[in-house]
Formats: sequence, C-alpha cells, structure tokens
Amino acid sequence: MLLKENIPISYIAGKIKKEILFVTIYAVAIAVLYNSFHFTRISIPIAVPTILGTVISLLLAFKSNQAYDRWWEARTIWGAIVNDSRTLTRQLLTFVDTHMGSAEERAFCERMAKRQIAWCYSLSRHLRKQDPLHGLEKYISGKELDYVSRYSNVPMALLELHGEDLRNAFKLGWINEYQQVEMDKTLTRFSNEMGGCERIKNTIFPATYSVYIHFSLIMFIMLLPFGLIEFFGIVEVPLVIAISCSFFLIQKMAIHLQDPFENKPTDTPTSTISQTIERDIKQMLKETYHHENKQASGSLEGAKVFYIL
Amino acid sequence: MLLKENIPISYIAGKIKKEILFVTIYAVAIAVLYNSFHFTRISIPIAVPTILGTVISLLLAFKSNQAYDRWWEARTIWGAIVNDSRTLTRQLLTFVDTHMGSAEERAFCERMAKRQIAWCYSLSRHLRKQDPLHGLEKYISGKELDYVSRYSNVPMALLELHGEDLRNAFKLGWINEYQQVEMDKTLTRFSNEMGGCERIKNTIFPATYSVYIHFSLIMFIMLLPFGLIEFFGIVEVPLVIAISCSFFLIQKMAIHLQDPFENKPTDTPTSTISQTIERDIKQMLKETYHHENKQASGSLEGAKVFYIL
Amino acid sequence: MLLKENIPISYIAGKIKKEILFVTIYAVAIAVLYNSFHFTRISIPIAVPTILGTVISLLLAFKSNQAYDRWWEARTIWGAIVNDSRTLTRQLLTFVDTHMGSAEERAFCERMAKRQIAWCYSLSRHLRKQDPLHGLEKYISGKELDYVSRYSNVPMALLELHGEDLRNAFKLGWINEYQQVEMDKTLTRFSNEMGGCERIKNTIFPATYSVYIHFSLIMFIMLLPFGLIEFFGIVEVPLVIAISCSFFLIQKMAIHLQDPFENKPTDTPTSTISQTIERDIKQMLKETYHHENKQASGSLEGAKVFYIL
Amino acid sequence: MLLKENIPISYIAGKIKKEILFVTIYAVAIAVLYNSFHFTRISIPIAVPTILGTVISLLLAFKSNQAYDRWWEARTIWGAIVNDSRTLTRQLLTFVDTHMGSAEERAFCERMAKRQIAWCYSLSRHLRKQDPLHGLEKYISGKELDYVSRYSNVPMALLELHGEDLRNAFKLGWINEYQQVEMDKTLTRFSNEMGGCERIKNTIFPATYSVYIHFSLIMFIMLLPFGLIEFFGIVEVPLVIAISCSFFLIQKMAIHLQDPFENKPTDTPTSTISQTIERDIKQMLKETYHHENKQASGSLEGAKVFYIL
Amino acid sequence: MLLKENIPISYIAGKIKKEILFVTIYAVAIAVLYNSFHFTRISIPIAVPTILGTVISLLLAFKSNQAYDRWWEARTIWGAIVNDSRTLTRQLLTFVDTHMGSAEERAFCERMAKRQIAWCYSLSRHLRKQDPLHGLEKYISGKELDYVSRYSNVPMALLELHGEDLRNAFKLGWINEYQQVEMDKTLTRFSNEMGGCERIKNTIFPATYSVYIHFSLIMFIMLLPFGLIEFFGIVEVPLVIAISCSFFLIQKMAIHLQDPFENKPTDTPTSTISQTIERDIKQMLKETYHHENKQASGSLEGAKVFYIL
Repeated sequence: MLLKENIPISYIAGKIKKEILFVTIYAVAIAVLYNSFHFTRISIPIAVPTILGTVISLLLAFKSNQAYDRWWEARTIWGAIVNDSRTLTRQLLTFVDTHMGSAEERAFCERMAKRQIAWCYSLSRHLRKQDPLHGLEKYISGKELDYVSRYSNVPMALLELHGEDLRNAFKLGWINEYQQVEMDKTLTRFSNEMGGCERIKNTIFPATYSVYIHFSLIMFIMLLPFGLIEFFGIVEVPLVIAISCSFFLIQKMAIHLQDPFENKPTDTPTSTISQTIERDIKQMLKETYHHENKQASGSLEGAKVFYIL
Repeated sequence: MLLKENIPISYIAGKIKKEILFVTIYAVAIAVLYNSFHFTRISIPIAVPTILGTVISLLLAFKSNQAYDRWWEARTIWGAIVNDSRTLTRQLLTFVDTHMGSAEERAFCERMAKRQIAWCYSLSRHLRKQDPLHGLEKYISGKELDYVSRYSNVPMALLELHGEDLRNAFKLGWINEYQQVEMDKTLTRFSNEMGGCERIKNTIFPATYSVYIHFSLIMFIMLLPFGLIEFFGIVEVPLVIAISCSFFLIQKMAIHLQDPFENKPTDTPTSTISQTIERDIKQMLKETYHHENKQASGSLEGAKVFYIL
Repeated sequence: MLLKENIPISYIAGKIKKEILFVTIYAVAIAVLYNSFHFTRISIPIAVPTILGTVISLLLAFKSNQAYDRWWEARTIWGAIVNDSRTLTRQLLTFVDTHMGSAEERAFCERMAKRQIAWCYSLSRHLRKQDPLHGLEKYISGKELDYVSRYSNVPMALLELHGEDLRNAFKLGWINEYQQVEMDKTLTRFSNEMGGCERIKNTIFPATYSVYIHFSLIMFIMLLPFGLIEFFGIVEVPLVIAISCSFFLIQKMAIHLQDPFENKPTDTPTSTISQTIERDIKQMLKETYHHENKQASGSLEGAKVFYIL
Repeated sequence: MLLKENIPISYIAGKIKKEILFVTIYAVAIAVLYNSFHFTRISIPIAVPTILGTVISLLLAFKSNQAYDRWWEARTIWGAIVNDSRTLTRQLLTFVDTHMGSAEERAFCERMAKRQIAWCYSLSRHLRKQDPLHGLEKYISGKELDYVSRYSNVPMALLELHGEDLRNAFKLGWINEYQQVEMDKTLTRFSNEMGGCERIKNTIFPATYSVYIHFSLIMFIMLLPFGLIEFFGIVEVPLVIAISCSFFLIQKMAIHLQDPFENKPTDTPTSTISQTIERDIKQMLKETYHHENKQASGSLEGAKVFYIL
Repeated sequence: MLLKENIPISYIAGKIKKEILFVTIYAVAIAVLYNSFHFTRISIPIAVPTILGTVISLLLAFKSNQAYDRWWEARTIWGAIVNDSRTLTRQLLTFVDTHMGSAEERAFCERMAKRQIAWCYSLSRHLRKQDPLHGLEKYISGKELDYVSRYSNVPMALLELHGEDLRNAFKLGWINEYQQVEMDKTLTRFSNEMGGCERIKNTIFPATYSVYIHFSLIMFIMLLPFGLIEFFGIVEVPLVIAISCSFFLIQKMAIHLQDPFENKPTDTPTSTISQTIERDIKQMLKETYHHENKQASGSLEGAKVFYIL
C-alpha cells in the first residue's frame, strides 16, 4: 500500500530541527571556549562518553524493539481484520442459500456484509478518536445508525447488530445451528481484534524508560564535545551534530512507532485497509466498486510523502 | 486510559533518594581524599569500570526485557478479559431469545452479564490480595454472595455459578447443546485468563539475577570515581551521581514492571479496565451507566500523577 | 529445495560493486593526502569510529532480526499452505464417499483438489504482481477461469468458488453439516494465509531506520581511514575496503530478506512449493504427475546459482 | 507462592565456593610473583581480557535468555495445568446433572475430579524421577492404582482411565455427544501439557555452548590478573575475585534455570501447585480441605530459604 | 533421553582440527617474522581487531539465536508428535467401544494405532533422506505397505490410509459424526507437524550471512596476531589459537544446530522419540513391548558419546 520513495533530507531534518539547533549552539560554544580561551583542561578522554554511548545504544535497541513489536502487532491485527472480513462474507454467501434462496436471504447477506464494511471504517475512526459515525450512512440503514449512535463504543454496537441478525437468520432457518455457532466465532474474532487495537492504543510505553533515555542522551551529548575537542578542534562541531542527530532520529522514530493509531502519517494505514476490505466485499457481492477515489488517492498521495518518520 | 504527562523531576528523584545520598557521600569522600591528601595512586584506568559497565548493561537489558514481557503479558490478559466479557454478553443476547423470550430468559441474561462484571472486579481485588467480595453486592444476589464467600478463590466460584446457570439454561431449552458448549469455551477462556494472572502474580523473577545485578552495580559505582578522578577532579562527583542514577532508575523500573498486580501505581490498571467492562456490558443490556465517577476519576487522577516508575 | 553451494566471490562482489568503487577511491585519496602532503594532523583516535561502529552493529542486528523474522514468517505461511492443501485433499477424499459414491462425487473432489493447485499458483503470481491467471487453464474449467478473471483478487475468487462447491456438496448430501463447517475452517485458514502474505508484501519496513542506518554507515566509513592511517599507512586501503564491504553486505542482505515476495532469487520459493503441492495432490488423486520438468528444474538451477544474497 | 526474602551472602557464596577458592589462590600467586620477583613484563593491556569479556557477556546473555525461556515455559505449562484442572471440574459439575442426577452420576464426577488431583501429583513425581504412585491411594481406588502401576508412564495411564470414564458416561447418557468431544479436548490439553514437560525435561541444552562458555570464562579469568596487576598491585586480588564471582554466579544460575524439573529448590514448584489444585478441586466438590499442612508448609518453608539460585 | 556427560577435549578439538592447524602455522609465522627479522612496525593497536570482534560477536549471537530457534522448533514439533500420537490412541480406545465392541472394532483400533507407530518411524527416515519403508512391515499389512510404496511422500500416504479407515469406521457406525470430525482434526495436526519438519529441513539459513560471518572471522584472526605481538611476543601463539578456537567452535555449532534432520549425532533424536511412542502406544494396547533393545541402546550409547557439537 505504501511505496518506498526517496525521503527528502529536509523532511527528516524538520523532525528534529529544534534539537539540531540546541546542539549546534552548544557545540560551537564549547569550541569557541576551547580555542579562544585555551581552556585545554576541559578535554576528557573519549572513553567517558563511550560508556554512556553503549548504555544508550542498548536502551534504544530495547525501545526500538518494543516499539516495532507494537507497530507490527497493530499491523497484524488489521491484517487479521481483512482476513476475517473476507471469511465472514464467504460464510454468508456459502452458508445461506443465496442462489436459490428468497430475496430476504439475499438482503440479509448484503446487510451483514455492508455492516462489516461500516465496522471497519468506524473502528478506524474510533481508534483515532474521530467521530466513528462519519460516513456510515452509506453502509447501514438510518435505523441502525440511530441505534449505534447511543453507544459510547460504536464498533461494539455494530457487532451486536451482527449477532442479532445471525440469531434471526437461525430462527428463520437460513442457517443451521452449527453455522450459527461457527459464524459467532468469526464475530468473537472481530471482538478480539477490536480489543487488541484498543489495548495498544490505551497502554502507554512505561514512561520512565522514555524519560531516562532522553536524560541519558542529553548527558551523552553534553559530554561528547569535551571528548572530541582535543583531536578535532572546530571539526568537532559537525561531528557532534551528526552523532546527536542519529540518536535523536532513532529515539523519535521509536516514539512514533509505538503509537500506531494516533492519526499521524506513520500510523497503521487503517483507512487504506478499510478501502481494500470494501473493494473485496463489494466484488464478492457482485457490486461494482466506485469509491470516491479523489479522497482516497489523496490520502494515499499524502502517505507516500509523509510515511517516513 | 493513562495519559502521557510531564513527569516532575522531584518524583523520579524521590524513588531513588536513598541511593543518591549514599553515592553522593561516597563520591565526595573520594574526591576529598584525592585532592587533600594527594593519593594520586588510587586513580585507575577508565577501562576497568567499563568492562563492568558493559556486563551490567547487558544484564539490565535482559532483565528489562523479561520484566517488560511480564508486564505486557499481564496487560494482554486483561485485554483478553475485556474481549471475552463482551463476547459473553453478545452470546447471551443473541443465543437466548431476549426479544420474544420470557421474562425469565431476560433475567437469566442479565444475571449472567452482571455476574461477569462482578467477576472482573473480584479478580482485580483477588490479585491485589484485597477483599475480593468488596462491592460485589451491586452485581450479584445476596444468596450468591453468600455462596462464593465460602471459597478461598472467589472468582473461581463465580465461574462455577456461570457454569451452573448455563446448565439450567440448557435444561430449560433456552440455549441448544452447541451453544452450551460454545459458551462453556468462553468460560474456559476466563479460567485461563484468571490462571495466567495468578501465574504472573505468584512467580517471582529468579532472585539471584536481581541480587547479582545489584551487587555488580554497587561494585561498578564504587570503582567509577577512581576511574574518573584523574581527568575531572571534583567534577567527578556530579558525573558519578548522574551515571549511577541512570542505572538505579532502570533497575528500579524493571523491578516495578515485573510485578504488575501489587496494588502500586505502576500496576496494570485493572480497576479502570473493570469499569470499562461494566460500562460496555451495561450499555449492551440497555442500562444506563451511572458509575460513582467520583471514586473512579479520583483513582484515574492518581494514575495520571503516579504512573511513572 | 535449495542447495548449499559454494558461492563465487565474484557474485557477492557484484552486489556491492558500486559501493566498493567509491570506498576504494576515497580510501586511496586519504592515503595519498597523508603520505604525499604529510597532513599528519588528520589522524584521529580509533575510538571515534569505534563508537559509531558499536551503534551501527546494534542497529544492523536489530534490522537483520526483523528482516529475518519477516522472511521466516513468509516461509512459515507457505509451509502452512502446503499442510492445509494436503489436509483439504484428505478431507475431500475421506469425507466424501469417493469409493462407492457416484461419478459426480468423484468429479467434485477432483475439481476442488485441482482448484486448490490453481489457488497456490495464482497466489504465488498475485504476490509477485504477475498475471495471476497465467497457466490456470490446466487446473480449472474455462467457465471458472472466466468468472475469477472479473475479480481484482483472483485467489480470493477461487476460495469463493471452493465455498460454493462445498455448499452444493452439502445440499446434495455428499458431506454432512459438521463436515461442511470443518472444511469451511480449512478455507478460513487459506484466507488467513493469503492475508498474511499480503500483509508482509504490502507493509514496508519503517523507512527512517533504513535511511538512518545508511547515513550512519557512510559517516562511519568516512571516519575510518583517519583512524587507521597512522598505524597502517597505505595498508589502510584494503582494511577500509574489507570492513566497509562487510557492513554493506549485511545491510544489503537485510534489505533483500525483508521483502520475500519481490520476484527476486532470494524470494520465498513459492513456485517450487506450488509444484510440490501439485505433485502431492495429484498422487493423492492417483493421477500420474508429469510436470514439465524442463521449466521447473531450470528455475531450480537458477535458484542454486542465485540464492545467495 | 514463593516469597522474596533477603538472601544470605553465605548461601550464594556456598554455591561457588570451589570456584572462589581456585580463583583466590591463582590471583594471589600472580600478585606474589609480580611483587616479589618483579616480573613486571607479565603485565598486559586491559584491552585483551576486555575482548573476551564482551564475547562472554554476549554468550551468557544468550544462554540466560534460553534458560529463562525454558524455565518460564515450564512454569506456563504448570499454570495451564491449574487452569485445565479447574476447567475439567467445572465441566464435570455443569455438564453432568449433579444436582438432580443419580448418586452414580455424582460418584462419577467425584471420581474424575479426584483422579485429576492424582494426575497432578503423579506427573510432578514422574518428572522428578520419583515413584509416581506415591500417595495416590488417597485419590484413586485400589483397583485403579493396580491398573496404572503396570504402565511405565503413570500419568498417561490416568488420562486413559479419564477417557474410559467419559466413554461410559456418554454410553449411560450422563453427557451428550458434544460434551464428550469437548471434554476429550480437555484431556488432549492435559496430554499436551504432560508432553511439554517431558520435552523440557528430556532435552538438554546444546552441550558445546556450555563447554565453550566455561572454557572462555576460565581463559578470561586467567588473563584478568595480568591486565589489572599494573594498576592495582595487591588490590588486584579482590577485584579478580569479585569479577569472576559475578560471571560464575550468572553461569551457575543459567544452568539451574534450564532444568526446571530436577528436584532442586529452584524447580518449578510443582508440589505446591498440585496442592493448590487439590484445594480448588475439593472446594468445588464441596469437600473440606484438610491437607496435612505440616509437610506442605515444611516444604514451603524450605522453598523460602532455598529458592534462590 | 540424552545424558550430560563430560566431553573429551579431543572430540571437540577434532571438529576444528583443520582450522587449528592453519591458525597455528599462521600465528607462529608472524611471531618468527617479528622476533627474527625485527619487523616491529607490523604491530597494530589492539583496538582494530576489537571493532571486528564486537561485530562478529553480535553476528554470531544473531546466528546462534536463529539456529537454536530452528533446533528448538524441530524438537517442539517432535514433542507434539508424541502428544498427538497418544491422543489419537486414547481417542481410538475411548471413542470406539473396544470393551464390548466386535472383534472388528478392536482390530480397527489396533490397525490405526500400529499404523501411527509406522508413521513416526517413516517420517523420521523420510526427513533424513533414508528409505522410509524400512521396517514398516512390523506395523502395517503387506497390502498397505504396497500401497504407500507408490507415493513419493510415504508419511502422507499413511495419513491418507488413516483418513480412509476413519471414514469406514464412521460408515459402519463405530464412531459418530462428531468423533470423526474430532479425529480428523488430530490427523490435521499430524499433517501440520510433518509439514513443519519438512519446512525446517528444506529451508536453508540465508547463505550470505554464513559466508559473511566466515569471511569476517578470517579477517579478524588474521589481524589478531599483529595486535597481540607487541605485548606477548611468542605467547601470542597460544592466545591466538585459543581465541580463534572459541569463535570457530561457536560458528560450527550454530551450523550444526540449524539443520536438525541431517542424520548427524546432533540431530533431533527422532528414532529415540519414535521408540518412546511405540512403547506408549503398545502399553495402551495392552501389548507387551519387547523392542530389540540392542539396536536401540546401541544408538543411544552412540548418542551419549557424540551428542556434543
């Protein structure tokens, strides 16, 4: 969905411009102090910042790992949502006799499948703290829209409607008892996927680690010029900037990765995934899929440009 | 649930104030000894504490990883409890004919759903070694409260009542045989989740690792001033304090993370999660949810402030 | 499937020849500058590139790990496709009464089994962005080929046909209701496997990590000659080339591993696996398996030679 | 179950007293050689043992990780045994009509539940290579005891009796066909848990790693005094002892952790867990639980003191 | 199954004798060059090989981890085969009425159980590329042996026969429809386990990593004497040998571990495990188990001696 593009240096630099500014001023100040006032005693052995560098590397590796795992788990859950949405639709079409069945049976299948599309969109918006009802009117009836709007958790209400439709289908003999239980398991999986997303969304990474890493990083950067000045003189300035940029970039990216549902460009692309689900379900329903591509491709364009940090 | 806030330096410092005090006295003593009595021979190459620093870093990374895994597993289990509580309620509402069914059927569904809320609260208190019966009278009848109070494991007794209610519902024909087995699987998942929490609660992290890390850390900090004194003189004091604070903080946080059910602010927020479950279940039952927000938001406020270390 | 062979040095060198060229020119230039113009002040302590080397090592280890995990997950999914294809065939042959059943029942089993072969081939081509319909005419009827060609996701359409055939078999009494549900679970697993492959295919590794690693690597290689020149003189040149080759090779391999469906020789060998599935299914159907071995062994030969980076 | 206590230094020292003795003699010998005979040429740069130290740290981290994973897997399996024992009992009590059923039905439930207690105790002893029949007479009849004593794998025989009782219950109409299959799944889980424990018990950690780590460690300790003697003189002795103790302790603990069923104090507390299971099952059966607390609490006391290394 | 024994140094040395020889010659040559011709300029700072040492350590840790994971996964799969073989036998004995059933029913159970033993042995030999039909005549009839010999994948053919027997049993009313589906799930697990073993067997570890690690290792060892010669003189020779042995041993063991089905002594002990399965199944069938212990214990003896690298 997201393409590998060359990332403009300016974009990356923009993410940490405040940090670069401070580091530059600091490094220049040290160099000036050293050269102009001959404070040569301030030079320290490079081994001192090295100890800190090793510790920070290990901690950043730890944090990157956990952040990546959260991000990948979020992505895996949305992959499972794609799979289960297709499975639900296939079960509807093959458990219910859609070929020779009554018009009501066909309507039931279509209603369920479209509500599933609605569920994906509303879950996506629910996780980003946006209005989860936005745009649902295309997929569910006004009565249902009214019903779900009374819940604080809209996707959960949609699953409840799924369950009620299944009960009716069972009562009317459109599906048998095994099929009801089997499709209820699919609903349970949706419930678990929704809960998994909420868990990732609502659990913050232990704050002390973040604070401590930041604090050690600042100490490390403050010591670095003293360790380099003896050998490099004024050349110390670009070196300090380059090294500290690297560390700041990694730290920043870990912070971004660990919250994959924050409506930022680095998010799990839940809207794009929801559109794929809509396309697949509509093709299975033999409907032509004319999505308003303007908005969609617009956000995709944006993704191409911004999906970096 | 828990918000990212700026953490006051004073709070962090408070967690390790004893350690800071000792380290300060020690570092100052070494500096005084070095400067006043010219014990210059005590200076050692910085490489010696560096070896220890590397080893400790690796061990702390190992311990942080395991502690984080325990904490994240505890969080995942409680996430699964949310999912399965919703699933149980959905199954009740869609397997039993709550629309056209008898009043008894509706009462059965409500009784089960409320008992599920009670189960969450009592599990939360059971794990924290608090009275697991506290507050249950709002959700279950006096007779049931009486029954479960005879058990040493209250949540297990509640699950047993769940099972008995399911048997009766099956006997009375409210659910069919597949649905009974399917809902029994949901009870089995609750049983596994309860057991998973107890396992994390009751298994201590291998004590020798903790002891050894602490012991190496002290040795490292005791050697550090000797390695720094030659280059820094009295400046060695803040450096030693800063470096040792970092290590102590990481160690402390790993200790906190590895026990997520100890009724400390860093715990898995089981009470908050239980309240979410109560809200969701009550909305599915079409009940208005008027939780005593005072107490709830109070503890949430506390969480905002204390959820750091 | 893929054999361990000696890898010609020339092949490996070919992968990074551009990088080698630049590094050589750069290292020679530094050496000439140092020796001819006696710019001895440019020598720096080896500890400076060492810090960067440690950080890069940790980051490359992190990236190699994640890349390897993606590659192994892709391989595991295709392993599961093999297992489930065999399972589906076994279920067909043992649930349906193929021995004493009607010719229609036998035809149904054969049609399903062959469509399963088609599914594997088309999924393989779908993931590589090749024409997913290529060669399917050997396994499915013209009518079905026509039907699936209307879908943007051909493998999904094939699964839908699977589901419809199962419904008919159930209606006609060839399989009972439990067996229908059980085989539907097998279809669900295929759906999950397809979705898993698409997830790996469509999710790019966070781009900033890659950019940052590349950027640090270049900085490290630019500093390296200055650190080595004092001790080695002109011998610095081969050392710098050797060390930088190592880092470039690891980086390159991680990039290759992380995208296992890109139609490159390092891909998951999906075509070879599909042929194994075809052979196994045909043997179970008691058909003789005469695959056009020329093409197959040709691509295998190619694999022997190219499966290195 | 196991409490965090202060660990007496003497206990820890006892675990590695032989190693400490050798290291002390060796370090003192080097110091005497250096000081008395002025063999100053034997001093080597500290960087040499540092290389080895890094390698050993990485290998010990690797080994600690794998050992911890085995230990935690063993603990998780026993946690699952607790869960499934409770689940089995709940299924017995709610699938069979114990309230209004015949005395035979109640006897069947009680027999199964008590046999489950027996299974836990005998599995615990089986894994520790103790007599698995010891104490079973309290939970199963003499006839059954006789039967299982003919098997080399007693817990497996108990599961077989479980299965036979379920068949009879199904034949007599006490449980229906779905319930039989569902409870058979619970037996399958017990079978998997037993097999998992046996796998951990019977698979040794690759021996070469252990040998190699030991060998590198000895080399490292032998080089260490030479690296430290120049700067520390006689102070080298306590330093070498302290550093080598650390490494020996970690190594020792990893060895202990990786074999969690060896009847040592660091084992997975299988007896204590079995007692918990007994208590829970008996409460569910409404029996009073009067375990011989003397023996139990005795072993628990022991655990408090010895559960360290 | 495999015992921890003292490993003779000579055995370990034998595994890397070629490497030791080359390293010795090389190290001696450098020492002679240095001492006799006074090429003192060739000494380099120890920091240069240290950089490489760190990188190689990280890469070896990465490789050891992946290799160990493959080995442990292979072991876990065979553990699952043990569990599921017992489960299949228990299901046969308790689903079919073996006590009061006809002789045919008992014969069916015995035939299935013995075929399961045959499946384990033939899978073990199939994975090692040995004749998978060897010795099967003891467990299956001549007719079945004839049938399976027509397949390229013998274990798969045996599973097919399992499936056919289950169909017949269902047709004849020996098992009901739920039991057939439940036992089919057990067959599916066998299918997955077989596929898992084949996946591990047929997927090679990315070759470039191996080549690169080997290449870096050689470079590291070639630089090492130059770094040590200044301080150690001729003592450099044993040091270089010792350090390089360590690295070669770890590399070698990772290579061995990553291919656990190559008919080498370090393999997963599939024959021994198959014998355990045979013993357990025969005891459940009430057969006396007289395995030809000579051959078995012979191979076990061998294992005791060779299971090291």
